[in-house]
Amino acid sequence: MAKYTLGIDFGTESGRAVLVDVADGSEVATAVYPYLHGVIDEKLPISDKEVRLEPDWALQDPEDYLRTFQVAIPAVMKESGIDAADVIGLGIDFTACTMLPVKADGTPLCFLPEFHDRPHAWVKLWKHHAAQPEADKINETARRMGLKWLDRYGGKISSEWFFSKVLQILDEAPEVYAAADRMIEAADWVIWQLTGVESRNSCTAGYKAIWSKREGFPDQSYFKTLDPRLEDVVDEKMSRIIQPMGDRAGGLTEQAAKWTGLVPGTAVAIANVDAHVAVPAATVTEPGRMVMIMGTSICHMVLGTEEQIVPGMCGYVEDGIIPGYFGYEAGQSCVGDHFAWFVENCTPASYVQEADHLSIDIHQLLEEKAARLKPGESGLLALDWWNGNRSVLVDVDLTGLLLGATLATKPEEIYRALIEATAYGTRVIVDTFQDNGVPIWELVACGGLPEKNKLLMQIYADVTGREIKVSASTQTPALGSAMFGAVAAGKASGGYDTIYEAATTMAHLKGETFKPIPENQGVYERLYTEYLRLHDYFGRGGNDVMKTLKKIKAEVKHVS
Amino acid sequence: MAKYTLGIDFGTESGRAVLVDVADGSEVATAVYPYLHGVIDEKLPISDKEVRLEPDWALQDPEDYLRTFQVAIPAVMKESGIDAADVIGLGIDFTACTMLPVKADGTPLCFLPEFHDRPHAWVKLWKHHAAQPEADKINETARRMGLKWLDRYGGKISSEWFFSKVLQILDEAPEVYAAADRMIEAADWVIWQLTGVESRNSCTAGYKAIWSKREGFPDQSYFKTLDPRLEDVVDEKMSRIIQPMGDRAGGLTEQAAKWTGLVPGTAVAIANVDAHVAVPAATVTEPGRMVMIMGTSICHMVLGTEEQIVPGMCGYVEDGIIPGYFGYEAGQSCVGDHFAWFVENCTPASYVQEADHLSIDIHQLLEEKAARLKPGESGLLALDWWNGNRSVLVDVDLTGLLLGATLATKPEEIYRALIEATAYGTRVIVDTFQDNGVPIWELVACGGLPEKNKLLMQIYADVTGREIKVSASTQTPALGSAMFGAVAAGKASGGYDTIYEAATTMAHLKGETFKPIPENQGVYERLYTEYLRLHDYFGRGGNDVMKTLKKIKAEVKHVS
Repeated sequence: MAKYTLGIDFGTESGRAVLVDVADGSEVATAVYPYLHGVIDEKLPISDKEVRLEPDWALQDPEDYLRTFQVAIPAVMKESGIDAADVIGLGIDFTACTMLPVKADGTPLCFLPEFHDRPHAWVKLWKHHAAQPEADKINETARRMGLKWLDRYGGKISSEWFFSKVLQILDEAPEVYAAADRMIEAADWVIWQLTGVESRNSCTAGYKAIWSKREGFPDQSYFKTLDPRLEDVVDEKMSRIIQPMGDRAGGLTEQAAKWTGLVPGTAVAIANVDAHVAVPAATVTEPGRMVMIMGTSICHMVLGTEEQIVPGMCGYVEDGIIPGYFGYEAGQSCVGDHFAWFVENCTPASYVQEADHLSIDIHQLLEEKAARLKPGESGLLALDWWNGNRSVLVDVDLTGLLLGATLATKPEEIYRALIEATAYGTRVIVDTFQDNGVPIWELVACGGLPEKNKLLMQIYADVTGREIKVSASTQTPALGSAMFGAVAAGKASGGYDTIYEAATTMAHLKGETFKPIPENQGVYERLYTEYLRLHDYFGRGGNDVMKTLKKIKAEVKHVS
Repeated sequence: MAKYTLGIDFGTESGRAVLVDVADGSEVATAVYPYLHGVIDEKLPISDKEVRLEPDWALQDPEDYLRTFQVAIPAVMKESGIDAADVIGLGIDFTACTMLPVKADGTPLCFLPEFHDRPHAWVKLWKHHAAQPEADKINETARRMGLKWLDRYGGKISSEWFFSKVLQILDEAPEVYAAADRMIEAADWVIWQLTGVESRNSCTAGYKAIWSKREGFPDQSYFKTLDPRLEDVVDEKMSRIIQPMGDRAGGLTEQAAKWTGLVPGTAVAIANVDAHVAVPAATVTEPGRMVMIMGTSICHMVLGTEEQIVPGMCGYVEDGIIPGYFGYEAGQSCVGDHFAWFVENCTPASYVQEADHLSIDIHQLLEEKAARLKPGESGLLALDWWNGNRSVLVDVDLTGLLLGATLATKPEEIYRALIEATAYGTRVIVDTFQDNGVPIWELVACGGLPEKNKLLMQIYADVTGREIKVSASTQTPALGSAMFGAVAAGKASGGYDTIYEAATTMAHLKGETFKPIPENQGVYERLYTEYLRLHDYFGRGGNDVMKTLKKIKAEVKHVS
């Protein structure tokens, strides 16, 4: 009798449920629930008064997550016609750090009448960017105290991460902080709603909340220095019990079974993060093969057997991706977004007409025109910093650069130069890992871009000098979650005992791969040398003009 | 009885005749003759065979110049209703260096059946760019011989100039060279056609043919070293009699009187160049006031009382613009062209729709949007080298740079950054003159741009910190030519004895001027500091990436 597991992928705008055959990972049915309130960045979605949000805020409504269970799971069950008894497990993945303050019983503060009009009582979405002063304080304090854990995060804690957001609540709404019995990742909170048991996963704890398997959380003395009221935050509002990836969080409660139509007691895996859960779904459970989740940005993940300090990565966590390995993460903050910006702001009307005439997408037209160019033919070189630089410079104040333009420069040449720039950015990351003891011999891509832009994939292969394989699934996070659901169920119930076994049968690559073309590599090697020189000149203090311009911009805007 | 003079302005695509009242310079009538063959850059306009041209070639047909006399002058006479007897003089200005090989009687070689299918027998237009190897040889030879005259031209003779073109004829078509009795600027050739007398003007001789009032042409030994066949080029095919601006070249011949409908013997001024003749037409006949002719490119001219070596200018010539002064010239090779490139290649369809909706030009829409931004608000900085850098770096291999882009960057911000970049480029030129003993306290603009783009004018004022006045005439070259026609006629005939007197009454400024706005100046001062640092880093050898990219591009294209 065939067995199935469910993967639920909580994205920024919607939740997605995918029902997967445990035997081979084939995707039987998919349903998407578009969140009712989505990203809340203008005003709170409450009817009794108007509460507007400051710039840089981004909240969500926990009810949207529950509705995903209530709508998307029944939908896939219905579509598939599968008996709920044959669904042996369930896993979820989430954006991170996306966190919320809750009561001891798990009730979100924003559900309570006395707090529903307080922005700080709602879920802070990963891209809530209003906690920069708190992040600065966290970093300065750690540097002043000489704390080594900063090195695990490329030397800098982001404003997006857990304690930056917690500290912002404490700073701006101390009564919300006081009323919160628990501060928790939304990933862990939804697992709590399914199982009735609070658990904390090693992935978000490690990558977003400064936890490590060997050293735990930062000392109380650090939190006390940061703010005396924060001294006991871990023991009062969090937990020191952190479970590794692959653990079973518990079984489905009666109530959750009613929401979903599944059988009570169905195995539920510990929570996971969308990017990290994609790694085994892309067939990677061993060192040396870097997974690139390619979309609006790129998230790079690679496993290592040893603890290495690699400059400028986002972080590394033991057991953070696959148990038994150090999971290293790096990132590029502007990839798909880059091309979308270009299309919206720089593509001339004549190209839009041409695309219309050919009945193709404007991206496709640009790709076709750009594909006719040879490496080096445009004479252009760009720095891919339109949204700052995450890895390896960790500097949000860097900005984009385009060099080499002439009066003969065409839009497709700029478009190709932007693609190439992001490829050079990936090359910097790959080389930095390699040079710091985390070898990489192959790249495995997943996400939306590999499907959409084959020129881009070939350029990445040529620039990095590495073969790029592509995940067969177009829903790798959900597949990965379903795989962890199968591990939570275990072999005895028809699943697997380890994620390695699950990956062997459930995860697949496409037949098509992208191999470096030697003559292209030769040209790109020369161009990359030039890229690196500009990268270091503008990115490592040779010329701080980008920061100076930002400073002038801020002053000028302030005066107005 | 009112007296009139004619100014004929020979442009790249057409010839323009303007009839002017000598008393106050008012323009009575204008006619334009669009050249039949215009710029010949694909194949010769002959019917008996197909002769295709190499890339970078640009020729013209001398017949187009004669037709300008035959068509445009009768047209203005007819339109004005003026009696030909009241037209006391005529002046012309031309693009330069635009030159041709002719027989001893002035017949262009391309008019002869035996040479009409030889490209080298035709007029080489100023933008004929196929003589770069010859220019390189001219420069190398002069440097090797330690010849000081190179300093007069910013250290480099251009491929566009006279001897580069002569040497290309000798190299590639020695029989055309041998058959040519005279090598002559088209400017001087048309005066010859009007007066029957060969004359040579100090402006083209000085700026384009390495002549100076004090030292004459380069020595025979130099020409011999360049090519033994060239040893006597000056004495054999040119002339050492060079006439200063303001001289009378002669009187109209019977034949020219028939072509034009003017009276035989009408005074004809020595030939002039379009940019230089605009100086007195913009009211400038004294040092300290720089004239900027602003169009696709900018030509900067200023007078000085002393001989100064100013790095990177295009050249300086004693009596070359106004008798009694050193005329200094500098240039920016990409200004109006820059904005045209941007509109064609980088303006999104939504902006074109918006402009259509508002029934305004897309340039106007961009200008209006850009005008709403404050200096420094875009966070962008550009190097205006889309077409290389003429002054002060004298380097055609430099290319454009845009820095500071983010995902929030809008088209109008880039548009404004490009305008600002050209303003910084002008500031470099102004400061270089000032720092090298050629003071500049005021700018006077003419050409098409000041009319079209007031935002640009204000930015130039803010960036240079100098008031910018604007010539009242929209046809300054033709007006300048008409003024020199009045000087050729002389006071006794109802004209003027000097160009100073002519300028006092015939040239005017608009009432509207552009004054620096102090708060803008403060921001631009800071941005200019950053511009200069990038300018020197990329332009003076700190990082030769622009040249490296061009080299790679050339190699890649060559392989294909």
